[in-house]
Amino acid sequence: MASRREDVQYLEYIFSQFYDIGVNSYGGVTRLGYTKIEDEMHDMFKDLGEEENLHTYIDEVGNTFVANDISNKEYYLIGSHLDSVVNGGRYDGVVGVLAGLLILNWAKNDNLDIPIRVGAFRCEESSNFGKCTIGSGLITGELKRDDVKGLVSKTGRSIIEIFNSKGYNLSPKKIENVKQYLELHIEQGKVLEEYDIKAGIVTHIAGPRRFEICIYGEAEHSGATPMDMRSDALCAASEFVLELEKLGRKEAHRKSVTTVGVLNNNPNVLNVIPGEVNLGIDIRGIDINSLDEIENGMNEAMKRISKERNVKFFLQSTGRFDPVKMSTHMQKKLSECSEKLRISHKVMPSGAGHDAMAFTRVCDTAMVFIPCYKGISHNKSEFSSLLSIYDGAKIIYEYLKGEK
Amino acid sequence: MASRREDVQYLEYIFSQFYDIGVNSYGGVTRLGYTKIEDEMHDMFKDLGEEENLHTYIDEVGNTFVANDISNKEYYLIGSHLDSVVNGGRYDGVVGVLAGLLILNWAKNDNLDIPIRVGAFRCEESSNFGKCTIGSGLITGELKRDDVKGLVSKTGRSIIEIFNSKGYNLSPKKIENVKQYLELHIEQGKVLEEYDIKAGIVTHIAGPRRFEICIYGEAEHSGATPMDMRSDALCAASEFVLELEKLGRKEAHRKSVTTVGVLNNNPNVLNVIPGEVNLGIDIRGIDINSLDEIENGMNEAMKRISKERNVKFFLQSTGRFDPVKMSTHMQKKLSECSEKLRISHKVMPSGAGHDAMAFTRVCDTAMVFIPCYKGISHNKSEFSSLLSIYDGAKIIYEYLKGEK
Repeated sequence: MASRREDVQYLEYIFSQFYDIGVNSYGGVTRLGYTKIEDEMHDMFKDLGEEENLHTYIDEVGNTFVANDISNKEYYLIGSHLDSVVNGGRYDGVVGVLAGLLILNWAKNDNLDIPIRVGAFRCEESSNFGKCTIGSGLITGELKRDDVKGLVSKTGRSIIEIFNSKGYNLSPKKIENVKQYLELHIEQGKVLEEYDIKAGIVTHIAGPRRFEICIYGEAEHSGATPMDMRSDALCAASEFVLELEKLGRKEAHRKSVTTVGVLNNNPNVLNVIPGEVNLGIDIRGIDINSLDEIENGMNEAMKRISKERNVKFFLQSTGRFDPVKMSTHMQKKLSECSEKLRISHKVMPSGAGHDAMAFTRVCDTAMVFIPCYKGISHNKSEFSSLLSIYDGAKIIYEYLKGEK
Repeated sequence: MASRREDVQYLEYIFSQFYDIGVNSYGGVTRLGYTKIEDEMHDMFKDLGEEENLHTYIDEVGNTFVANDISNKEYYLIGSHLDSVVNGGRYDGVVGVLAGLLILNWAKNDNLDIPIRVGAFRCEESSNFGKCTIGSGLITGELKRDDVKGLVSKTGRSIIEIFNSKGYNLSPKKIENVKQYLELHIEQGKVLEEYDIKAGIVTHIAGPRRFEICIYGEAEHSGATPMDMRSDALCAASEFVLELEKLGRKEAHRKSVTTVGVLNNNPNVLNVIPGEVNLGIDIRGIDINSLDEIENGMNEAMKRISKERNVKFFLQSTGRFDPVKMSTHMQKKLSECSEKLRISHKVMPSGAGHDAMAFTRVCDTAMVFIPCYKGISHNKSEFSSLLSIYDGAKIIYEYLKGEK
């Protein structure tokens, strides 16, 4: 086995091959799913596999695989994605693929006789089509043709047109022979960093419930309308934002979180009382009862505020996924591997969604988190050290050796 | 004197001449100050004056006047403006000019020997240059060359370039010989309508204090950041919005109002905790002590929220006008005229700003409000009946007859 120094150099080499792809003038990268830039990322991944004399192939929806064995045997699948959000960072997704390549490298040097494949799944981010995990979703049956056939990209191309031009298939054969799925990913939160811990072993992936709420009040002159004659949509929205925060805090012990990420105020001028406010709401958690509690509380808050402030609320559910559970058996073994390697670890839930969610439908699944700087993600400041990737990959490799 | 029916027909005729100027596909009008569209409005006003064989002239800053006497005698000035906000309505400002023309008409028919001039003042709305009452401000000395010379229009033209191209003068001679100023205007609030009263006699014009506040928290992943590790700028902003509303309600007995009209949320995406929020704040009132009380309360709220939520507030004052008082003598006489004419009236403050503010610097000043549909203004749905304009004009005309 190569020295740690050589391994980190290899990671640096493969990371740098992706570095400039999709770079923008702000210093971040924009690598939207199912665009030419994502194609470049996948081509590079394939090239890096071929450099190591590994097998490579592309599946029916454009996911790219590098493998040490492409026979019909059951195999271990390590994967993540190579697309990014608009003005995103270079680590989200990419680190999982880098770790996979490093692990294949180790397996080759050690002559480890285990079939391992590394997959890069298309369009994990919802930034281009408003829908996430398209590549992993289609091949696991999590997403059907009907779920995606109407999607249109940010530049107005339909997914059908894109799939036709590439020869991809919106109804692909379900992926077969996957024994277990493992994914290394940056935490995208700051829990590991705050606790100064090197790895997270994921227990659940939180299920997001998403809502769009429109609040209608009366847009009136800010100077000429006495306080008691107003139906201020922004004041109503503010009260709602704080109520939802309170519900999230109340359910924090069950690891739920609530966020109003989007607020659009209308007409949004200085001398008019806001007449219409649109909110985008994201509720996540790993405990369905807790999520139900929050959703009920949200509906009650809406009713009360609507009545007290003489405004109208319209709510639309825009997404609803149940939380998924990682394999308990794999969690336990990964924790043991961390301990053996003296890499500090924490058993924790994932608040963010990942390709691993889709694979829980077809096999036992596990995830390993590595810390990222200040928890920043989806941003050019996203950063994770190569040593963190190395540590996470070590845990997974140790696990695979145990499977032999 | 013509019959009421003929008067309303005349109002309808002159109103309709302006109707289509600056019309947009949404049904509203955009007549920004110091643009060609405002020029068209002023040309039409001049034409309507000439049709009645009245004197017309344009002053050094582009304000247009129609007069029954242009000798050096002291005169009564009736005025308002012909510009609008973006996608504005057809009544704000225009009704004051229409009323002026109707009054000149009556004076002519009655051979009333009083010098009356009707002024249309340029760029009363702040929509084009971010500054209001430019035409009336410059000729009354309320605004100096230095206050406006740096202004640039929405389309990027500097006010200096516009003034040069038209032969206007940023340092005009101060307006002279104005005995009193009277302005009829739509209320832009719904007090008159709610009380079913036909006219408002204005006591004060509220002084706006305007602020821009930036709130900085931490933009982090909405799923991966536990509730107790957040610095959510939108939650902080929401708390502030409600505190400011509370301060306004507390000072409602002194006729003050507080509004957060502008809220811009960043990055404004579903899966990121808001990291930066910008607010635009408008505080108005007729009592300086009350305004001070609110401003102090606002500063205290900012400090408290900043500390409790670990966010940063930056405040910038963007406008500050003291409230102005209308002439008590004129108010009293206008109220008497309403009573005599059996037109119901209410003595009330003006929350909105008007050209009349500028004229308090040069002469006794009064304003008459007429109701507008649901208080809606700065919007295509703005509406006031011709009979309301007629009633308001009658009160002013009765007042002028009493001055004879």
